[in-house]
Amino acid sequence: MHFPKQPQNNDPAIQPIGVFDSGIGGLTVVRALRELLPEEDIFYLGDTARLPYGGKDRATIERYSLEIAGLLLAENAKMIVVACNTASALALPRLQQTLRIPVVGVIVPGARAAVQQTRNGKIGILATRATVASAAYDRAIEAFEAGVEVISQACPLLVPLIEEAWLDDPVTREVLERYLNPLLAAGVDTLVLGCTHYPLLEPLIAELAGPSVALIDSAFNCAAAVRQVLEEKGLRNTHADPGTLQVALTDSFNPFLKTVEAVLRLRIDQLERRVVQGVMMLPPLTAV
Amino acid sequence: MHFPKQPQNNDPAIQPIGVFDSGIGGLTVVRALRELLPEEDIFYLGDTARLPYGGKDRATIERYSLEIAGLLLAENAKMIVVACNTASALALPRLQQTLRIPVVGVIVPGARAAVQQTRNGKIGILATRATVASAAYDRAIEAFEAGVEVISQACPLLVPLIEEAWLDDPVTREVLERYLNPLLAAGVDTLVLGCTHYPLLEPLIAELAGPSVALIDSAFNCAAAVRQVLEEKGLRNTHADPGTLQVALTDSFNPFLKTVEAVLRLRIDQLERRVVQGVMMLPPLTAV
Repeated sequence: MHFPKQPQNNDPAIQPIGVFDSGIGGLTVVRALRELLPEEDIFYLGDTARLPYGGKDRATIERYSLEIAGLLLAENAKMIVVACNTASALALPRLQQTLRIPVVGVIVPGARAAVQQTRNGKIGILATRATVASAAYDRAIEAFEAGVEVISQACPLLVPLIEEAWLDDPVTREVLERYLNPLLAAGVDTLVLGCTHYPLLEPLIAELAGPSVALIDSAFNCAAAVRQVLEEKGLRNTHADPGTLQVALTDSFNPFLKTVEAVLRLRIDQLERRVVQGVMMLPPLTAV
Repeated sequence: MHFPKQPQNNDPAIQPIGVFDSGIGGLTVVRALRELLPEEDIFYLGDTARLPYGGKDRATIERYSLEIAGLLLAENAKMIVVACNTASALALPRLQQTLRIPVVGVIVPGARAAVQQTRNGKIGILATRATVASAAYDRAIEAFEAGVEVISQACPLLVPLIEEAWLDDPVTREVLERYLNPLLAAGVDTLVLGCTHYPLLEPLIAELAGPSVALIDSAFNCAAAVRQVLEEKGLRNTHADPGTLQVALTDSFNPFLKTVEAVLRLRIDQLERRVVQGVMMLPPLTAV
């Protein structure tokens, strides 16, 4: 059996950066990439048919992440950005072991920025249940500087409230206060927004946390890490044209997309629907 | 190639009722089935790896429902109960066209009960975004009695609040008031709890709606419809032994299961994890 030769197309000037998230929240990372790397093409996959990831287990999140990585490879991605804290916390090691192209997540860049920021050595983490249970931020912060105290708070209601677009609402305020109070009582001076949705609540979180607490936006720090990797590996697109943004979602029902586009002022060049196929075990083929 | 003959096992006394939901909320239907049909075995599939369904589109929900139906058929189910309002609203016609065994959902039984209940002809529906957008309750109610006014309210925050176990909490109260006010202002005298999670909030909803509004629990009405179908088709298990309950979930991270078991006082005989495989298109086989 002959397979036709495929064109290689391994030219970083025509290869996009592949970005994925459980949904649309990861577009906060795309917004940051746009600012730091305006000439790069970006292919974004939001797995809206299976979101959210934040209350699911490692086996599920690893499987979903590998399936999506396959789709991004087929799109000729030169690197993969895991623009989702939960997938970064649970699936990044597996992706990095499996793929030959660079894979960057949001946890390590956020942890590095938090360690550089803190003065009193007390860092608070707001994240999904799955991210908190994984202790990925604790390990990443410990690796940068031993002895820093990490206090984590699972915030399962924030994503639904943000997707409802209740960004400045008494209910959201009350829920946020309940989540923030234990961290503020513990005296954190640095707070990591450990979910790519949370930057959309940044004004309210900043107001409730007060001026003495620094907020760490993992989206911006992730984009800086992506730029560094592209430069180290010689994968920067050096053309001067502005890059394009192609967004593929696995489900078409996305009222939240309007909120995100409005808040992020992001130009989407192409929006389409894709099915991410599950890995299926088949019996071995035998002669008929 | 020879396939060995499979035992048929089409004996209703050993065939379970297959029940599915996007998650664990559908166990409210199982609780009602237990009361009405204590001798029946039940196999329950909660698709916790892909929940929630309430903000997803028809193509996605049809695909998930068909994949799960395949698993329930492999478990030798004698009928399928769609214990999920969103899947009932979006996928029931496709399931009924495709499967030879009876398929019962929660929408039609709930609509029938609401029409029988209302005195002033004004029915309110609390449901997910996808169920409201489908207008499935409107059509079902119209089919039972033309001229009844249906006022629907999408309640995307209720499922996350219930899964957080904030069942009697000031935040939940405030959110519920906001969802209920337009329905109460419109003068509904009957309110359908149009999501299998919502019966867990019934005490709070009853308090806020007041004694003049009747609540329709789709779980109980669905179980009554299941009993009727089993009797009509001669599929009742007439053994006197109490039936078993086997629960399979597609993700293992389910803190909400504790809340449900505690509130419903449901005995689960076997709990396991299953992967529901996606349908994958393969290229045609050709000679090597």
